[in-house]
Amino acid sequence: MRNKKKSLFVVSAPSGAGKTTLCRKLCEMVPDIRHSVSYTTRKPRPGEEDGVHYNFVDEKRFRTMVADNEFIEWAEVYGNLYGTSGKAIEDMIKSGIDVILDVDVQGSKQIRGKIPGSVFIFVLPPSMEVLQTRLTGRMSDSAEVVKKRLGEMKNEIREYENYDYVIINDTFDIALNELLSVVTAERVKVSKVDSDWIRENFFKEE
Amino acid sequence: MRNKKKSLFVVSAPSGAGKTTLCRKLCEMVPDIRHSVSYTTRKPRPGEEDGVHYNFVDEKRFRTMVADNEFIEWAEVYGNLYGTSGKAIEDMIKSGIDVILDVDVQGSKQIRGKIPGSVFIFVLPPSMEVLQTRLTGRMSDSAEVVKKRLGEMKNEIREYENYDYVIINDTFDIALNELLSVVTAERVKVSKVDSDWIRENFFKEE
Repeated sequence: MRNKKKSLFVVSAPSGAGKTTLCRKLCEMVPDIRHSVSYTTRKPRPGEEDGVHYNFVDEKRFRTMVADNEFIEWAEVYGNLYGTSGKAIEDMIKSGIDVILDVDVQGSKQIRGKIPGSVFIFVLPPSMEVLQTRLTGRMSDSAEVVKKRLGEMKNEIREYENYDYVIINDTFDIALNELLSVVTAERVKVSKVDSDWIRENFFKEE
Repeated sequence: MRNKKKSLFVVSAPSGAGKTTLCRKLCEMVPDIRHSVSYTTRKPRPGEEDGVHYNFVDEKRFRTMVADNEFIEWAEVYGNLYGTSGKAIEDMIKSGIDVILDVDVQGSKQIRGKIPGSVFIFVLPPSMEVLQTRLTGRMSDSAEVVKKRLGEMKNEIREYENYDYVIINDTFDIALNELLSVVTAERVKVSKVDSDWIRENFFKEE
């Protein structure tokens, strides 16, 4: 195999930037990459499948996983628990599969340094105005709640500097091509080259 | 502008790996990237245009450019002089254009550290056997000359470890897509983000 070392791609974005659709589409288009499935104590919504959208577990099971150090990141959001299993990611990487994980800025911070060769990607909307329009369109909340949420998002956006790549989701197809390019380019990085393959193909009689 | 910092992409390969065709095709497909034109004292071959394939100069002019430190790399090959103008590259980068330069392993070594944000790409043939077949097919030389040349190429191939990316040119379209992806991914690196653009679009009222 030319390159056998696989990567974890961590994708973060303020909500409304379109990261989930980007990641889903990427997995449809690229071979040997899989979306990491998070664990949650939240109840499934109509159409959500266990093991596909989330691994749905009860709080007791979740707390045991926390105690056993199974999560590389976890958080409580509006009373529900969400977490990412480090072992599941490492198993996929070992089996020769790249993993893509979409997680918020806080989750991404917890992951840093834990999985070698991780690549951090930040997805931005084209402007604050666009984010505001998208957010107002999908929230039934009061203007005050929207304003508070936008303030939080600004703090998230400031974190872009800590990522490796910044993709601006203005035109979806361009943003998707950029995300595909990041995955393809990372796969041909010199650190991913299998030196056994090089030896076998160029220096085998030595 | 979202990203205003441009890059120099330095592409090296043993001859027969197909780097020149890859670079030419890339420039046709990607906007805002230009192939750097080398200077040479060699006489133009039929079909070669001054300023397109090479800047053809006489030896006196070339030696003056060497004395004036205009070349970031230069070499004598079979009695002819070849060189790359650092100023021409820096001018293109300043004007908002990425530059691609194909240059051998020795030339690439001379460039290292001279232009900030340079990206080094190594193109490999799929195997030594393929390289040998391609080389024998296009050389009219004796078996001994071919053998010597292959030995030199092995030494060049060992240098792949000093590059940022390694592209294996087995199937041309796959190799081209990998090269395109490297250019696209490098353009969305966080180091290329224009922080003024971020401020203007997300924090302008602050």
